Amino acid sequence: MEYKTEIKVRYNETDKMGVVYHGNYFAWFDIGRTGFLGSIGLPYWELEDEGIFLPVIEANCKYKKPAKYGDEVIIIAKLAKLKGIRIQFDYELYRKSDNTLLAEGYTCHAVVDKNLKPINFKRKYNEIWNLLKEHVGK
Amino acid sequence: MEYKTEIKVRYNETDKMGVVYHGNYFAWFDIGRTGFLGSIGLPYWELEDEGIFLPVIEANCKYKKPAKYGDEVIIIAKLAKLKGIRIQFDYELYRKSDNTLLAEGYTCHAVVDKNLKPINFKRKYNEIWNLLKEHVGK
Amino acid sequence: MEYKTEIKVRYNETDKMGVVYHGNYFAWFDIGRTGFLGSIGLPYWELEDEGIFLPVIEANCKYKKPAKYGDEVIIIAKLAKLKGIRIQFDYELYRKSDNTLLAEGYTCHAVVDKNLKPINFKRKYNEIWNLLKEHVGK
Amino acid sequence: MEYKTEIKVRYNETDKMGVVYHGNYFAWFDIGRTGFLGSIGLPYWELEDEGIFLPVIEANCKYKKPAKYGDEVIIIAKLAKLKGIRIQFDYELYRKSDNTLLAEGYTCHAVVDKNLKPINFKRKYNEIWNLLKEHVGK
Repeated sequence: MEYKTEIKVRYNETDKMGVVYHGNYFAWFDIGRTGFLGSIGLPYWELEDEGIFLPVIEANCKYKKPAKYGDEVIIIAKLAKLKGIRIQFDYELYRKSDNTLLAEGYTCHAVVDKNLKPINFKRKYNEIWNLLKEHVGK
Repeated sequence: MEYKTEIKVRYNETDKMGVVYHGNYFAWFDIGRTGFLGSIGLPYWELEDEGIFLPVIEANCKYKKPAKYGDEVIIIAKLAKLKGIRIQFDYELYRKSDNTLLAEGYTCHAVVDKNLKPINFKRKYNEIWNLLKEHVGK
Repeated sequence: MEYKTEIKVRYNETDKMGVVYHGNYFAWFDIGRTGFLGSIGLPYWELEDEGIFLPVIEANCKYKKPAKYGDEVIIIAKLAKLKGIRIQFDYELYRKSDNTLLAEGYTCHAVVDKNLKPINFKRKYNEIWNLLKEHVGK
Repeated sequence: MEYKTEIKVRYNETDKMGVVYHGNYFAWFDIGRTGFLGSIGLPYWELEDEGIFLPVIEANCKYKKPAKYGDEVIIIAKLAKLKGIRIQFDYELYRKSDNTLLAEGYTCHAVVDKNLKPINFKRKYNEIWNLLKEHVGK
């Protein structure tokens, strides 16, 4: 399953090069990931309220074309891997006006409790695990 | 008492106008405020660990000259007012190279507990209150 | 005229207090302001492409209730004043779910060229000035 | 050559998980990279003023331990690779108090002019290229 959402580039996301600062793409990936989870009935704020946190343990982005102020950007997120205590999401960002690929990347996540201690996700939250499992990859 | 510290403008703090995005000055005020508190023996993280939070209830900044990438900026913070449940800090920002005033502003704070409920600061934390009181204004 | 738009709180906009960091509200005001200008036919990126920049010379925000992760926030922006070389926008932020006022504020702007030199806006860009004039206040 | 600098975690860099938001580490890498360049006589703002821009084409970070508000963080940056039109910097972040590795990562950069067109860096700016070449790796 792919989750698709859109954002509009904000002025404060640009830098003096005149394009979006590279570090800001990770907040966009976050929007895609959150949107994905919400779309399958797992709003991330509810997960955190229940004591399930998904801190990022690796983040990667390849930048193809710069996003500019005023651009509308399509964020595509999918759940790429789910095994043991690791979750991976993949992302693609497209400029909406001409469908140009702007960037692609991934984030890997641990599953921890509110004290940032690892959780045996599959065992402790089996229902959520199964729900995620159904939506891995295409 | 005035607390003085320095920061160097970061690339991501600039925007496409080629200067620092105005919203980022409030994070600099924060550094000045935190530094002030630390300098009188009240590191802000310790206050929060003790259950004392100082959320901003009003923030103001007047921008005189733009800060640019590469600039070193002097942050001056002082405790301007302390009464009832309100605290006000005043700030000035100077470009270090030529002592130009870049901006001045203030923040007003409530005093709340970890559930964001107001605290009777003076009564409940009298020692901290007195310590702050000594450092109000000049 | 009032311009109304919506955003959803992003995870990276929160801080360790569990609510949105106060400095981030100014980027929301920016979205309202930009949206306002776009809605009357003056997309801000086009203004900048034409050499008209509106740097913030004063920013103010009063925080009433904290915005939280997951909240949808309604941004209301209006053009409050337009005189000489100064423009002021006023803002209100509401939590969408229950229409609670979260914050209100304003920004004042100079009108400058790409070298950040003041422009006689009314004379040099009379058509744009008149268009703005029509939309001041209610 | 390794370049070493320090920063102090800012309040606005934290998120509601109580630790630094992962996307913010890329601004710290940037500080390390800029510092590295400055230390060998190539302040990045001078490069940009001369028309040499180094946009990030890939960024990666592996997160080992969370950075927290109040932490002092040591940033180590080195120039890992320099070939053709590509430059790679590697980074390590350590918590100063106990020398714990917090994160490690890299960024790859293109070399472009102010219109974001690729430059034949080695040929066009041979002196700068040679200076960088001397400082690749250890």
